[in-house]
Amino acid sequence: VAVQEIRIGFGQINPVVGDFEHNSAQVLSQLALADGKVDLVVFGELALCGYPLGDLSYRLDVIEKTESALADLVAESKKYPTLTVVLGHVSLAKERHPQQSAFAIAHNSATVFSNGTVIGRYDKQRLPTYDVFDDWRNFVPGTNELVFELKNKKIAVAICEDIWDSNSGQSQRLEDLGVDLLVVPNGSPYTRTKQSERRFAARDFQRKFEIAYANLCGGQDELVFDGDSFRLDKDGQEVFRAPFAQGLFFESAELGEILDDDPSRLFNALVTGLRDYCKKTGQSKIVLGLSGGIDSALSCVLAAEAIGATNVLGVALPSRFSSDHSIEDAELLAKSVGCEFRTVEIEDPHESFEKLLDLSELAKENLQARIRAVILMGISNTEARLLLSTGNKSEVAVGYSTMYGDSAGGFAPIKDLFKTDVWWLAKWYNEQRGTTVIPARSISKAPSAELRPGQLDQETLPEYKVLDDVLRLLIEKSATVEEVVGLGFDHQLVTDIDDKVRKAEWKRSQGAIGTKTTQLAFGTGRRVPITTRFGKL
Amino acid sequence: VAVQEIRIGFGQINPVVGDFEHNSAQVLSQLALADGKVDLVVFGELALCGYPLGDLSYRLDVIEKTESALADLVAESKKYPTLTVVLGHVSLAKERHPQQSAFAIAHNSATVFSNGTVIGRYDKQRLPTYDVFDDWRNFVPGTNELVFELKNKKIAVAICEDIWDSNSGQSQRLEDLGVDLLVVPNGSPYTRTKQSERRFAARDFQRKFEIAYANLCGGQDELVFDGDSFRLDKDGQEVFRAPFAQGLFFESAELGEILDDDPSRLFNALVTGLRDYCKKTGQSKIVLGLSGGIDSALSCVLAAEAIGATNVLGVALPSRFSSDHSIEDAELLAKSVGCEFRTVEIEDPHESFEKLLDLSELAKENLQARIRAVILMGISNTEARLLLSTGNKSEVAVGYSTMYGDSAGGFAPIKDLFKTDVWWLAKWYNEQRGTTVIPARSISKAPSAELRPGQLDQETLPEYKVLDDVLRLLIEKSATVEEVVGLGFDHQLVTDIDDKVRKAEWKRSQGAIGTKTTQLAFGTGRRVPITTRFGKL
Repeated sequence: VAVQEIRIGFGQINPVVGDFEHNSAQVLSQLALADGKVDLVVFGELALCGYPLGDLSYRLDVIEKTESALADLVAESKKYPTLTVVLGHVSLAKERHPQQSAFAIAHNSATVFSNGTVIGRYDKQRLPTYDVFDDWRNFVPGTNELVFELKNKKIAVAICEDIWDSNSGQSQRLEDLGVDLLVVPNGSPYTRTKQSERRFAARDFQRKFEIAYANLCGGQDELVFDGDSFRLDKDGQEVFRAPFAQGLFFESAELGEILDDDPSRLFNALVTGLRDYCKKTGQSKIVLGLSGGIDSALSCVLAAEAIGATNVLGVALPSRFSSDHSIEDAELLAKSVGCEFRTVEIEDPHESFEKLLDLSELAKENLQARIRAVILMGISNTEARLLLSTGNKSEVAVGYSTMYGDSAGGFAPIKDLFKTDVWWLAKWYNEQRGTTVIPARSISKAPSAELRPGQLDQETLPEYKVLDDVLRLLIEKSATVEEVVGLGFDHQLVTDIDDKVRKAEWKRSQGAIGTKTTQLAFGTGRRVPITTRFGKL
Repeated sequence: VAVQEIRIGFGQINPVVGDFEHNSAQVLSQLALADGKVDLVVFGELALCGYPLGDLSYRLDVIEKTESALADLVAESKKYPTLTVVLGHVSLAKERHPQQSAFAIAHNSATVFSNGTVIGRYDKQRLPTYDVFDDWRNFVPGTNELVFELKNKKIAVAICEDIWDSNSGQSQRLEDLGVDLLVVPNGSPYTRTKQSERRFAARDFQRKFEIAYANLCGGQDELVFDGDSFRLDKDGQEVFRAPFAQGLFFESAELGEILDDDPSRLFNALVTGLRDYCKKTGQSKIVLGLSGGIDSALSCVLAAEAIGATNVLGVALPSRFSSDHSIEDAELLAKSVGCEFRTVEIEDPHESFEKLLDLSELAKENLQARIRAVILMGISNTEARLLLSTGNKSEVAVGYSTMYGDSAGGFAPIKDLFKTDVWWLAKWYNEQRGTTVIPARSISKAPSAELRPGQLDQETLPEYKVLDDVLRLLIEKSATVEEVVGLGFDHQLVTDIDDKVRKAEWKRSQGAIGTKTTQLAFGTGRRVPITTRFGKL
């Protein structure tokens, strides 16, 4: 009970990598809010320099500028003498690790300071090197615990991955040191099951101490940090939870049940990822092609939620093969979303290319997609609009896209959503809005690329329900073909899908980034050779 | 002297990742060649499964199939009872490393076997995790030395990175064990200075034992393994060197001086990278746009050397802004190379897009590049030809390219050659061939994208000599802007270049792969966020 007398504020800020002015201002605004209300303010992992930094951690100037920004904040903290602050940042390692490259010169640290004075620095000990994480590449591991006192309680610091291994010995060391409260800055990216996993890890690590888990909040390239800072009492009972929002959180909100696959949280993650990519790269307008189909419809909704409907331009690009309902549904969507809408017929360039070239049937299909990309990129360049690529995870997985056609774009907001999830989320969105924003026909009609008369996705691909189930096993569970077949799927079907996935590796290697929502997204978290015959033989 | 009685054959094979049948056949053919001629045959790192494997090392089926292929080879070795073999492969780790993720289940191993019997297995201890290497992500480190006897000599095994750290203690342990000969399978990728670096590392690691350094030979995605197996006697004297070629090497060739930046070796690396990408992905034909400029000219030469001139199609795609000499030089090149040549005028689609769209000046330039990509990809799809992207490192660095235009392609053969190096290598090629294969005017004329009347690269970019010098410092030496300015370059100039490099990150993230030739190539060896403001402020 006693330790709970320490009032903790969680500073869920949204740093920009390398923008020290911006990040420091965010830290200071949280301290001003916290003043007098809490004793301890905790920020996320590398909150001061931004996370992930990638190989910027190799650069001495990045480290020095971070340390200088830290020194300024320590000095500023005199304004709030009753606050103790835990802030994540890179720092120059005094010693290198013998098993690491000469490039790794920085610790992933958190400094504790108060009233103008540094109390101590903790350096992350466990360096995750899997999925999207490259910490062993980029950071020197720390070796020492940091314990400090506040209100007669012993407080220690651990960083993110440190607490995901209850067998590392650190947890026992902290108990032996008599720690009352463990403060944990995190750079913990959203996935659809992450909230429950965080609590599972924290409780598994926990001994006789409270845990205060602080996370960042915002998008950085393909990752979205979804806040969700929380506090566990000594019995592992959650006594505080912060929402998926930026700001300082310290008052206990209602603690509802945690729902894996919560559509509202997923939607929020997708909006945040897209919004922050735009904001942090200085882009305020979006363009995307509207086909009348569900993928572009959901992408358009996300764009409107991210940067405002009036900043979004949807373009219908009908060809000779487009059905009437495609253009109608595209226009209907634009109207209900409230975004700008244009129609550009592709027939003229289509004919002019046909006169120049003698193309195969497949190349004729691809041609139309590429003409659309030329038009959309022309608009993008002329009007300074970010082009969205609207492919979903099912398509990205099996390469059901045209390179430099529908794959073109600076950001792919739904690339980590399977097609069946796109339908599900679109329906949820309409329900939640209480009105049919996304046209019912866009949801109900059979998917088609409309690149030849009467074309349907299911002529080329298995039913999406089946495809997605198989892909989830092959990609997210790393199952072998034999294992998937063992679960009752047809051998030829699974082999064909596996083959498509491998053949599309070169396409994915050139794909736009997009928000990670699952345990294994296509992107930096999945690193396989383009050139491989494994599985083919 | 005594230990040199052991005759060593270096099996410089070219494995395909995951193609066990192919790789095993290569191993067996080397054993047949070695039979009766040598005592010991050494292959490169992971020669049996291919390298780098990436996250395929996470897959139990990959590990099991490798181990099964190994068992077959061990059985086959009864045919050659006098041979002892050292072969690299993945193996299932009995214990996991506590600091690694649950995904890392494989060792990076080398097994020693002879006459149907396994003598022992060594597991790589040092796991490089920098540049293109992800070994700590993918492999469990080994902990034990392996020493075996042959002809009364003690032989030990180390793998690649193991010998790049003379302070690890391993070198001393091997000496303490009385080792006479250290055998080292390597997956050592070509760079322009790698040959001398390999010998420096080996001599630094060496104690009182001979070293037999064996490398792979061939291309795998962005890496080229350039053979160069060698043997150092106990005094560090090089007594054997294998060429940059596939096959079994064991007879002492002439040991010439090693030349950093050897143009012949660089050219060979570029040809090998492109050839093996084609061969291993099952592509036998190439298409590329010929602008009359030097980049496409050198790329065309590389393509012809890689897969034969008759399999290469060069396409001139003149626009209203193309100069006469562009088309002439393109045709001249195609003739001298002996490749197929076509001309496709882009005026018709150019006009049809102009009627559809109201474009900015920059977008008008990009439009032409994108029309060309549509045509080239149409040919690529129809004729099953790999499209080459012909951008050089200077352009890739500062983003001087059109997305989905000249950046389009499945492989970018010269993406790790600065513009000044392109000129240098083109001149070398003509000299070496003794005839002007690459037209003199393509080398001498001022570079131009010809996307507007009279356009020159140097209106937008600094002189390439200056640009390349600055880029070499910023990219390859990770110098800060201040450090580059300190060397005498103009502050505004360096800041502008640095800014361009950062802004082009999203373009590079969607770029085609291409052969690494330098210490730091754009690709998997350089991992920085797309979203960052570092350096901007």
